[in-house]
Amino acid sequence: MSRPALQAGHRPVIGLLTDFGLSDPYVGQLKAVLASLAPDAVIVDITHGVPPHNILAGAFFLDASLPWMPPGAVVAAVIDPGVGTARRVVCIEADDRLVLAPDNGLASLVLSRGRIDAAWVCAVPEAASATFHGRDVFVPLAAALAGGQHPNTLGSPIDPGTLAVLPGIAPRHGQGVISAVVLHADRFGNIILSLDIERWRDILDAAPRLGLCSPVRRTVRRVSAYAGLAPGEVGLVAGSQGYFELAMNRISAAETLGLASGDEIAFSLDREE
Amino acid sequence: MSRPALQAGHRPVIGLLTDFGLSDPYVGQLKAVLASLAPDAVIVDITHGVPPHNILAGAFFLDASLPWMPPGAVVAAVIDPGVGTARRVVCIEADDRLVLAPDNGLASLVLSRGRIDAAWVCAVPEAASATFHGRDVFVPLAAALAGGQHPNTLGSPIDPGTLAVLPGIAPRHGQGVISAVVLHADRFGNIILSLDIERWRDILDAAPRLGLCSPVRRTVRRVSAYAGLAPGEVGLVAGSQGYFELAMNRISAAETLGLASGDEIAFSLDREE
Amino acid sequence: MSRPALQAGHRPVIGLLTDFGLSDPYVGQLKAVLASLAPDAVIVDITHGVPPHNILAGAFFLDASLPWMPPGAVVAAVIDPGVGTARRVVCIEADDRLVLAPDNGLASLVLSRGRIDAAWVCAVPEAASATFHGRDVFVPLAAALAGGQHPNTLGSPIDPGTLAVLPGIAPRHGQGVISAVVLHADRFGNIILSLDIERWRDILDAAPRLGLCSPVRRTVRRVSAYAGLAPGEVGLVAGSQGYFELAMNRISAAETLGLASGDEIAFSLDREE
Repeated sequence: MSRPALQAGHRPVIGLLTDFGLSDPYVGQLKAVLASLAPDAVIVDITHGVPPHNILAGAFFLDASLPWMPPGAVVAAVIDPGVGTARRVVCIEADDRLVLAPDNGLASLVLSRGRIDAAWVCAVPEAASATFHGRDVFVPLAAALAGGQHPNTLGSPIDPGTLAVLPGIAPRHGQGVISAVVLHADRFGNIILSLDIERWRDILDAAPRLGLCSPVRRTVRRVSAYAGLAPGEVGLVAGSQGYFELAMNRISAAETLGLASGDEIAFSLDREE
Repeated sequence: MSRPALQAGHRPVIGLLTDFGLSDPYVGQLKAVLASLAPDAVIVDITHGVPPHNILAGAFFLDASLPWMPPGAVVAAVIDPGVGTARRVVCIEADDRLVLAPDNGLASLVLSRGRIDAAWVCAVPEAASATFHGRDVFVPLAAALAGGQHPNTLGSPIDPGTLAVLPGIAPRHGQGVISAVVLHADRFGNIILSLDIERWRDILDAAPRLGLCSPVRRTVRRVSAYAGLAPGEVGLVAGSQGYFELAMNRISAAETLGLASGDEIAFSLDREE
Repeated sequence: MSRPALQAGHRPVIGLLTDFGLSDPYVGQLKAVLASLAPDAVIVDITHGVPPHNILAGAFFLDASLPWMPPGAVVAAVIDPGVGTARRVVCIEADDRLVLAPDNGLASLVLSRGRIDAAWVCAVPEAASATFHGRDVFVPLAAALAGGQHPNTLGSPIDPGTLAVLPGIAPRHGQGVISAVVLHADRFGNIILSLDIERWRDILDAAPRLGLCSPVRRTVRRVSAYAGLAPGEVGLVAGSQGYFELAMNRISAAETLGLASGDEIAFSLDREE
């Protein structure tokens, strides 16, 4: 693992990804602890707006954002409905970045892309509160790693194949029909699907028009930018987050189509649908 | 006061706590002023999501977060419906941290825990706007203190006993019944009560089941973590914010029980309730 | 242009103003890129809460906040419904600060105050995504400028008179009636009007009472602070953002009067209205 060398002479970078929201003082307390333990770190708030307990949306945000973090960065991802139970606290190495997370499926998409190089289970201090491991466990671990400590000093190596995985998110393709899951609907109403651009581009580029056939029926046009869509038209865009998106132009596709995180969709590749 | 020595060799830390929200450019303007006046400071946004004008919630956020700020930190707490009137601008020293706030009860909970060591009334520049003291008064004062100025140079000492206090928030206990106030309901629906863990733990630990008897009737079980609760069950948890909380597992207790900041509740310590 | 000299020995300051919200990981990805390209910069989030695609509100936030940024600062303003189309990416110099924005009217209010000293059209890299220029175009440009590059190295000078301008936002005054536009209604319900304090103070100070006559009728009193208003009374305040505001005391004027961003209002200067 080449992390320490990558950070020589640089300020450490710590990313935070939680479902804590910004209306309570919880994120502020994470930052207060970091001001003590890692005062020179650059803190990147990936987002704290994961819907409460929504591990699928968190898994997507983590996967989509990790490549943009500088190599050597440490990310604490805390969507953790099982806090205080026996669920493991794990550290994952992916593409020269480290991720700390509860072992509840948050790393599913990073794992499915084959980007995990190593993993550790971390020790939880007995003095930690039973309700706020973000502040009392994850952030101190992140500060230690950002300060140059090797994961071996904070835990024990585990087989990445033992990490928890969310069920049912892998797309299926057969008989001209593709099934996928809605990972997230964003602020603009764009619907991000579990269709990795790298893996699905060739198949989807062959179909300039597709037929959304479940749970609603709608013709969908392959376009390269939202502004290329006519009023009311639904498009399929190779989005900025690494996945294909259903979108409309200045209108919420999520509201129009009634789709939200976790919904299953299917569409046919038949142009005449 | 030992503050300057505590910060030797460290970046100053400035905490911000307001009801400005993040949808307007107000917090951005606080940060812009700090970029000029305290460019090396670590800024900790405790939260800007205090409900508009809700001094009780602000008082709780301040009390719960102050101990997590590094010693020597300066916090500007601006929930200030009386901006532009004669209400005082005060500086409070508590546990080697300094708090700047309007004198309207925001320091009530810090005061009730006996943690205030000294207080000052600060001069307000005549050129300040009458509508945005956060930007024009509190942040410049915070930058001056964070830069090492002593409060004596910015104002005059006052008796902490003269600070404004919110009425009616002290819990009452008699004849097996405890009355308390809802300080805040958080994003997850946890209901934080005005029952300081340190002061009430012995009494509440003696009762594995309690009977919430006002404004709704409900059996409540003492548990140590949210995940220990059965579906639909309400628990009393010694939470991470220094106070006891009513909580449910992955369900909003606040919505289920219909409780919000400022509501009064009562429960009996009788196990059979 | 004296920018480089102004920043000598200081950390560069980069302001961000977008309609991306904080619930998606988009702003986090901007920060992640900045952690790589400008790790020593002070980042000022002016706000990310511009309503989706609301160029008028964005133009107001930019104009109101730019003077509070330190001289030499660079602001990336990204409210960009035309992303992926031929709209220009421009750099604007105003009062020793630089603004990067899509050329869609975002600079209208800065321009109307005569504060633009120079402008450039910037080159867009071919490799940029067609859906997320904030991350792929604006933030890299901002990092380059904050690092000391001159706008001439990133684009070509243009006549500021060719910049796009929002139609219909200039107030009109005649026969004792002033017409203006609602720029924004803030979290507290204050209604910010397109009436620049510097330009309109003398006229409005002459009228202690005004008559709002469209779209609702209401007597309005000139006051200096929100707290000076009686319950239910509507006031006209020279606000903290450089514009006159309609406001009430601890009540939302926007809800009470039913006014929102983009609405036109008119009031008479007749005291007896």
